[in-house]
Amino acid sequence: MTAPLAVTMGDPAGVGPEITLAAWQALRNQNQPFLVIGDPALYGDGAQAVGTPAEAFAVFDEKLPVLPVLLASACRPGTPDGANAAAILSSIEQAVDLTASGLTSGIVTNPIAKSVLYEAGFRHPGHTEYLAMLTQNLPVAGDRGPVMMLAGDKLRVSLVSIHEPLRTAIDGLSEAKILHTARVTAQALARDFGIAAPRLTVAGLNPHAGENGALGQEEIEIIAPAIQRLQAEGLNVSGPVSPDALFHEEARAGYDAAICLYHDQGLIPFKALDFWGGVNVTLGLPVIRTSPDHGTGFAIAGQGRARADSLIAAIRMASGMAERRSQ
Amino acid sequence: MTAPLAVTMGDPAGVGPEITLAAWQALRNQNQPFLVIGDPALYGDGAQAVGTPAEAFAVFDEKLPVLPVLLASACRPGTPDGANAAAILSSIEQAVDLTASGLTSGIVTNPIAKSVLYEAGFRHPGHTEYLAMLTQNLPVAGDRGPVMMLAGDKLRVSLVSIHEPLRTAIDGLSEAKILHTARVTAQALARDFGIAAPRLTVAGLNPHAGENGALGQEEIEIIAPAIQRLQAEGLNVSGPVSPDALFHEEARAGYDAAICLYHDQGLIPFKALDFWGGVNVTLGLPVIRTSPDHGTGFAIAGQGRARADSLIAAIRMASGMAERRSQ
Repeated sequence: MTAPLAVTMGDPAGVGPEITLAAWQALRNQNQPFLVIGDPALYGDGAQAVGTPAEAFAVFDEKLPVLPVLLASACRPGTPDGANAAAILSSIEQAVDLTASGLTSGIVTNPIAKSVLYEAGFRHPGHTEYLAMLTQNLPVAGDRGPVMMLAGDKLRVSLVSIHEPLRTAIDGLSEAKILHTARVTAQALARDFGIAAPRLTVAGLNPHAGENGALGQEEIEIIAPAIQRLQAEGLNVSGPVSPDALFHEEARAGYDAAICLYHDQGLIPFKALDFWGGVNVTLGLPVIRTSPDHGTGFAIAGQGRARADSLIAAIRMASGMAERRSQ
Repeated sequence: MTAPLAVTMGDPAGVGPEITLAAWQALRNQNQPFLVIGDPALYGDGAQAVGTPAEAFAVFDEKLPVLPVLLASACRPGTPDGANAAAILSSIEQAVDLTASGLTSGIVTNPIAKSVLYEAGFRHPGHTEYLAMLTQNLPVAGDRGPVMMLAGDKLRVSLVSIHEPLRTAIDGLSEAKILHTARVTAQALARDFGIAAPRLTVAGLNPHAGENGALGQEEIEIIAPAIQRLQAEGLNVSGPVSPDALFHEEARAGYDAAICLYHDQGLIPFKALDFWGGVNVTLGLPVIRTSPDHGTGFAIAGQGRARADSLIAAIRMASGMAERRSQ
């Protein structure tokens, strides 16, 4: 048995607390123990405070184990409060420290709202970049990320660019970024997903992958050279593929992950095929990190309407990754 | 009973002839008669030459009716021949003329290869633009297209831009183009698809639909104003919607067509959900026009491997549209 997973509190005014409880209900007898690092008051009678991660093993089948981080201000679901920013960040930092020291085996993060944290002085572009900063001095196997992957039962996509305007993503596309995304993805598939010789495919940027230059030059000037370089390194990489011919069932059977060049090229098909169960995996970090692929859900928080599917899938995926790393 | 449909030959060296025969086999007893305008030699013993479209009614249950257009050069499947360009174009022109005169009720086009036609002097950007030119002097109900829609059982998408580099599509995005696409789409849904008060939704351009300007300005400057204008005209239009939140089953239930801003924004989810059965419908033409949403398939032509699903769906859809217009 590996160490338990660390689940972060996320923004307590979002759906995090309720989906964490729901995930615990779903997983309590399934030998994938986790603890949440948060304010015990958020989780009610279903929770029990623990002093160390190891205590979670004894608690997990009966109660949700909570490693306490106390909120500065009482939580009102749906109404985020910058006064709690320090506790939100502390939960993330403790999860990193515990995982770096081996006391927890990986991190599953609940959603945070950047705008709430920004008001409180947070200065990182996002959750993933914050985790990359927190782990920047830890050793990493292979190329260092972060690379964002969406992973589900039907599809895995890794993104060359993430949260930037589409025009900026096109302007910034480079051979180096494609190489980096593909290398980190291949290493992670081998190490964390048990795929010894991963098959990657790279999407084109333009309609019909540029149609031999008639509909754009990026395939010829940037993407094909990157693929050739990766192939020369011994990786199994195909493409550039017409983006609209990459995501039906027959095409998906031909690769283990698709390298997508901009956010929606990967997210549109991923969420069309699996809106609720997708997992956001950060590849190339020194620690295992997964998260649900949705936001804080302030508008529905505290109403019992939030679906825990994605968090449950994120916990299961992190658990499987931790098992593989421990073997 | 409306007049029969006119199916064009398409490039005879592609999969057109074999999928036309397969479509006839599938539809011969289903009261949706069509004739193909092509060289009878392409269709073998299953075909019978006819002199007028009306003769197709008597023939259709027993043989594929063929209105003859003779090839200049014997067809070799998989090897296109510019010598046949004139016959390919003549098939299209006759289909337009017959439909404009009411002798056929709509046009279903088999795939052509622009490069083959270009070598023979063809000077139009593509099939759709050629049909628009051929029908430019015919009266049209409502706003004149062409607007390209992909339609299937799960999803309809109309495209604001089609075959251009992604960067060009972004640079050229305008309120006028969105208005035009939405208006033509709404009119076609009412007239041809039997949806009296169609619900449209407009995708954003950037990740998360720009996140209030943090990830791009086009939603604020171009897309939202277009939507407000359409709403002021009385249309039921929502958006701009985060592009990755628009295509799962629950989201699709909320609209009749999605207005997509670039080729792959619409084609990626459409083909992920329905790769084989999609239909390309040209909206806003004076004549009904559908086509399969695949190309000539030279690489597999003549081998019996081509799937006729999309052509069959295109014929069925054109038939339904013709029935509605005749009521």
